[in-house]
Amino acid sequence: MRIKLINPNTTASMTELMGEAARAVAAPGTEVVLATSRSGAASIEGHYDEALSVLGTIDEILEGDAADAYVIGCFGDPGLLAAREITAAPVIGIAEAAMYAAAFVATSFSIVTTLERTRVISEHLVRNYGMQDHCRRVRATDVPVLELEKPGSSARAIILGECEEALRHDRSEAIILGCAGMADLAKYLEERLGVPVIDGVAAAVKFAEAIVGMGLRTSKAGDLAYPLPKPYVGKLSSYAPTKLFPTTKRQSAERFAISG
Amino acid sequence: MRIKLINPNTTASMTELMGEAARAVAAPGTEVVLATSRSGAASIEGHYDEALSVLGTIDEILEGDAADAYVIGCFGDPGLLAAREITAAPVIGIAEAAMYAAAFVATSFSIVTTLERTRVISEHLVRNYGMQDHCRRVRATDVPVLELEKPGSSARAIILGECEEALRHDRSEAIILGCAGMADLAKYLEERLGVPVIDGVAAAVKFAEAIVGMGLRTSKAGDLAYPLPKPYVGKLSSYAPTKLFPTTKRQSAERFAISG
Amino acid sequence: MRIKLINPNTTASMTELMGEAARAVAAPGTEVVLATSRSGAASIEGHYDEALSVLGTIDEILEGDAADAYVIGCFGDPGLLAAREITAAPVIGIAEAAMYAAAFVATSFSIVTTLERTRVISEHLVRNYGMQDHCRRVRATDVPVLELEKPGSSARAIILGECEEALRHDRSEAIILGCAGMADLAKYLEERLGVPVIDGVAAAVKFAEAIVGMGLRTSKAGDLAYPLPKPYVGKLSSYAPTKLFPTTKRQSAERFAISG
Amino acid sequence: MRIKLINPNTTASMTELMGEAARAVAAPGTEVVLATSRSGAASIEGHYDEALSVLGTIDEILEGDAADAYVIGCFGDPGLLAAREITAAPVIGIAEAAMYAAAFVATSFSIVTTLERTRVISEHLVRNYGMQDHCRRVRATDVPVLELEKPGSSARAIILGECEEALRHDRSEAIILGCAGMADLAKYLEERLGVPVIDGVAAAVKFAEAIVGMGLRTSKAGDLAYPLPKPYVGKLSSYAPTKLFPTTKRQSAERFAISG
Amino acid sequence: MRIKLINPNTTASMTELMGEAARAVAAPGTEVVLATSRSGAASIEGHYDEALSVLGTIDEILEGDAADAYVIGCFGDPGLLAAREITAAPVIGIAEAAMYAAAFVATSFSIVTTLERTRVISEHLVRNYGMQDHCRRVRATDVPVLELEKPGSSARAIILGECEEALRHDRSEAIILGCAGMADLAKYLEERLGVPVIDGVAAAVKFAEAIVGMGLRTSKAGDLAYPLPKPYVGKLSSYAPTKLFPTTKRQSAERFAISG
Amino acid sequence: MRIKLINPNTTASMTELMGEAARAVAAPGTEVVLATSRSGAASIEGHYDEALSVLGTIDEILEGDAADAYVIGCFGDPGLLAAREITAAPVIGIAEAAMYAAAFVATSFSIVTTLERTRVISEHLVRNYGMQDHCRRVRATDVPVLELEKPGSSARAIILGECEEALRHDRSEAIILGCAGMADLAKYLEERLGVPVIDGVAAAVKFAEAIVGMGLRTSKAGDLAYPLPKPYVGKLSSYAPTKLFPTTKRQSAERFAISG
Repeated sequence: MRIKLINPNTTASMTELMGEAARAVAAPGTEVVLATSRSGAASIEGHYDEALSVLGTIDEILEGDAADAYVIGCFGDPGLLAAREITAAPVIGIAEAAMYAAAFVATSFSIVTTLERTRVISEHLVRNYGMQDHCRRVRATDVPVLELEKPGSSARAIILGECEEALRHDRSEAIILGCAGMADLAKYLEERLGVPVIDGVAAAVKFAEAIVGMGLRTSKAGDLAYPLPKPYVGKLSSYAPTKLFPTTKRQSAERFAISG
Repeated sequence: MRIKLINPNTTASMTELMGEAARAVAAPGTEVVLATSRSGAASIEGHYDEALSVLGTIDEILEGDAADAYVIGCFGDPGLLAAREITAAPVIGIAEAAMYAAAFVATSFSIVTTLERTRVISEHLVRNYGMQDHCRRVRATDVPVLELEKPGSSARAIILGECEEALRHDRSEAIILGCAGMADLAKYLEERLGVPVIDGVAAAVKFAEAIVGMGLRTSKAGDLAYPLPKPYVGKLSSYAPTKLFPTTKRQSAERFAISG
Repeated sequence: MRIKLINPNTTASMTELMGEAARAVAAPGTEVVLATSRSGAASIEGHYDEALSVLGTIDEILEGDAADAYVIGCFGDPGLLAAREITAAPVIGIAEAAMYAAAFVATSFSIVTTLERTRVISEHLVRNYGMQDHCRRVRATDVPVLELEKPGSSARAIILGECEEALRHDRSEAIILGCAGMADLAKYLEERLGVPVIDGVAAAVKFAEAIVGMGLRTSKAGDLAYPLPKPYVGKLSSYAPTKLFPTTKRQSAERFAISG
Repeated sequence: MRIKLINPNTTASMTELMGEAARAVAAPGTEVVLATSRSGAASIEGHYDEALSVLGTIDEILEGDAADAYVIGCFGDPGLLAAREITAAPVIGIAEAAMYAAAFVATSFSIVTTLERTRVISEHLVRNYGMQDHCRRVRATDVPVLELEKPGSSARAIILGECEEALRHDRSEAIILGCAGMADLAKYLEERLGVPVIDGVAAAVKFAEAIVGMGLRTSKAGDLAYPLPKPYVGKLSSYAPTKLFPTTKRQSAERFAISG
Repeated sequence: MRIKLINPNTTASMTELMGEAARAVAAPGTEVVLATSRSGAASIEGHYDEALSVLGTIDEILEGDAADAYVIGCFGDPGLLAAREITAAPVIGIAEAAMYAAAFVATSFSIVTTLERTRVISEHLVRNYGMQDHCRRVRATDVPVLELEKPGSSARAIILGECEEALRHDRSEAIILGCAGMADLAKYLEERLGVPVIDGVAAAVKFAEAIVGMGLRTSKAGDLAYPLPKPYVGKLSSYAPTKLFPTTKRQSAERFAISG
Repeated sequence: MRIKLINPNTTASMTELMGEAARAVAAPGTEVVLATSRSGAASIEGHYDEALSVLGTIDEILEGDAADAYVIGCFGDPGLLAAREITAAPVIGIAEAAMYAAAFVATSFSIVTTLERTRVISEHLVRNYGMQDHCRRVRATDVPVLELEKPGSSARAIILGECEEALRHDRSEAIILGCAGMADLAKYLEERLGVPVIDGVAAAVKFAEAIVGMGLRTSKAGDLAYPLPKPYVGKLSSYAPTKLFPTTKRQSAERFAISG
């Protein structure tokens, strides 16, 4: 099985870090292919960074080398539903995966994330994924994403401190790491905290294996069907669905049944 | 006051139609500037079309000609929060505006939209905007967006029929038109249905005037602050915040306070 | 356009204060007519005060001088749906208006209100208007309504302090003033806090203009139809709908179709 | 124990009907005192009727003859929280009582009510009382309230038919009668339907006995504390709390601690 | 009327304590029969204890001595829906009863319970019973259940302290005691706190009287119908519904109509 | 890896059917150990059957042969949290697993289950797992559980018909099979329906592999900690935690710190 792990952040060292986390948990028969987005922000820390990151993610999915499943390696799950439209292979977001993983091993969790400004993004995802009863709190550390991998940074200690606050004050029973760039911290924190610490990258890779192993593919019966054939213009003209995706009979019918 | 009405669909005739709806309601002192996105889908009918439409919307906001407010003219409100990050001028989505307008004049409404595949998008917005108690049902007509403006099309009759179903079966007290391309139908339908029929384009223009008139600007205190300065690469390198946005002192502090 | 701003509190000086806030934002063509309720509490600070305030509000709407829209100037939005029944002109509540305005410019807000005992009223409105995901907290200052306008009062400082707490602890990105009597504080606070501060009176006036400008009127198709003709007795006999409202054909049918 | 059952509808024959339902279930030691509101609508069928009905309900509570508990006999529970402010004796609404009673004997119910226009009122109560998971549907029969007691009316048959629809289509396991005027139908319907049929009047009387029997009184610690002392003017000047309610020390403190 | 109060905890002294609370409020004609479960945990303090407690509760209901209603005396309401299946007599849980009682006399409450590990159980019940808007917080004291009845224990002081925190910080207007073993504390706390303090045992007994007094029985139309006839094996073979419950005609039809 | 698949239904042929579904998807290194509960109902079709099934499930977990993870093979997920308390190995419910699997490949689903009386159980799980926005409807077929495996039964055709209704009327994009006994129908239905059809047994086995593969174990920090040491009596005396589970230092402290 071939899982393509796409880092929508354009920082290759972060992709390596995520790749290590992924490969550490991948099953023997699983090949994890790493891809660093070639367009957009060095680190995704807001709605704007997220929105623009989708282009690079789409590029990685549309490219020739088909995968059995895709993982989007940014905790905001940017472009998740768009990505699901353009392939029948399962696409897994790391926030979604982390939350469902946490729900399997704890009745409550806190999310510990990077900048305060990304907290709202996580809170929206908690609601979108129906995890309001499980998530006790989203906690920001105000550690920037790229700070996480700097040698000598105090990031690790700050994050540990925030996790301890979560256990003490939120009385949460598990911690979710709210950034792909924290993927290497899970074991370190778990040993010190004594509760499950969930890295979404590992969770998404394992759930991708699971979904593929069940023989499931993304539903093409509704909003996740391939994009309808239509012209695209300007900088994005090469993204026109007409050239890229299969047109189903039902779609043709939808397109042309009305006029007259 | 200058309101820039951005059509994220790249079809200029649709922009004209929206512009007429906008100018019909604009206050005397309001100048409505029309902009048709120069990148992306001729018509937005899904998550993929939406995600890619954000680039063109961002282009229109970043361009030199500052406006007092922006309206995003697509019922999925694509890129709304990203757009709010990159300007302090208010940005109004037409779905959001339509739902709040409906809530001011009715305790319940149905949304009548185009293709079945876009229904989920509207349902997600209903939840995001807290309108679950107001929205009785989202109804798809399976009329494609561009069909709406074809002469001789049966689109108008189909939509009227669906609205009548909404009044009869959902017992809704108002109708929201779930597509910017329906902007010219509001009066036609209202006369036949006898209930408020709300076009989001008109609603967004009027609410943009209202917000500007109150002296309100988008909050820059949290997730809607200007994007943080950072490198962008590849096709999107020109979108790097460093070149585009003011850096606040607090942001600098956030950036550099950690290492060491 | 003529907007009647009704103060359900029977304190004329508070009406003046609200009128100033209203006129400061009203469009050139808008005439704001002020009305102080002639029945009920000097200041509305609880369910009882609210419930009894509705009579005075109804009186102001039923009076001869028709308006294009009405604003109810008390943050509990007392009698809002009753008021919408008895006129087809839009009726806007200031709490509802303030929350939708805040949602246009921020993803989160806190409400800063007067007495602790009114906090529950605001919390119920947050839920009724679907703003649970936006509202981080309702904060009471225990400043009585009429204290707000006393010279030499420490009310202003107390409210500023509470707003600062909201920014620091709730991490809210905007402040809503939870009392019509705070209408004059918005600018003062906004300058000191650096985030949008929303006064519902100004918001309601601008949204009233917007709704009227869209040509929308309250739906008469369901629960907001004119009251059914029927006898009223005792102190309220003059409020019998028979004398006051148009009877639609459908209403007559509803009334008389059953017996037999 | 003395329970005052207040009919906010000003139709005495309906009060008698409710009184029979109440006395049929009252415990041996319970005296049910009937009161027909002396102000307002002959029948309450909308927000306006409801809002104006509160005055008559307040009159009945403020009158000399103290009761151990009060029941408000209209399915919209009009003025419930205001009523709770002005007495420490428990006040029970019949909609609230009916829903909790249903939840004790069934996991789902449908509400069968009178006019379509009152359906929204019931739906709001379902949400306010947290019964969204229990209530499958609110069904209107378009039978006016006063039609219920007319001899020879087809009202009874229409309501039975609607209840049958509820069992068949909603798969509900219990029926709640959505109008005090249906109090005499519970047994008739229960025999024919074979499921619990709940009349809110009986439920409220029994729950009032229960709450009194537990020694519970309305909390005076927050929003349900006695109204604050203050002037009332105009037609309502006699309702000024100053003359009517005890002033607690804490309230005095609240009132006077700020200025200076 | 005969109400059987079942203590699913197998500690007889706790049953006595609950019995005293029950009898203190029972109506003259009510006989409260006490039963201590003969199987399972001395004290129920978790999901495992709860799940295993159901057997003993079922035994007490299935035994010959029919009651008019049953009360399950453990704040987790363990086995409530299973118990409702096996008898048509009403079955009341003390958590459910306490929350509805609180809602009748206050707009907000806090639950003060025993061990931190049982807090999640209460939080789940708050959601299941639709009390999210009423319940401000569930507070654990980390006092074990059986500690409550030890002479010389500091349990009482600890609980009082936690209740005071609830009033001060949650601004709750009533307290619910989150354990049947606290039944004797209600009056003690109420005198000191000045707000309603609700013991679920008393509440459940009074509501059981009320439901029986209304003539209501558990609905047998859906999921609460008697268990379907079928074989049971092993340690539980004597629990086979075939021997224990009436088989309705509809159930027989359900069973045998399909094959062929 | 060793996954123990426990069938809480005491019908061995159903266990075989589930085992086939499990083994068809298990990874090469996964050993699926089958266990049929030795106590309780031949088929679980209600709250009573469910509640009593927990004993047999607990027996299978407490038995000597340790597993790396457990799957509870009944769509009501009976005893899930109790099971999680008594082992640190992950325990996965098939309903929970099926819903999260569906959420990974579709934005909406319908659940097709057996008897109408079990529908409420599924609806409660939908809410507990936060899937209200994903689940369009729970549909009962009134096919009894054991009918599913009878040769010559029309069960298969009835279920196919109900799934077709779900696609047509609910517009769902995926189907979840609401009974472990339907595990062999997934492929059959998927071929005919053209949308993902999810069997919870397969989903739970794959997610169990995934959770184990991530190195996650059930949190022992809160309500899922091992049961506290305490006496158990009567038929269940052998289930006393004292003999069965490790006592942590913190638990000892909790037990004994209070008195004195």
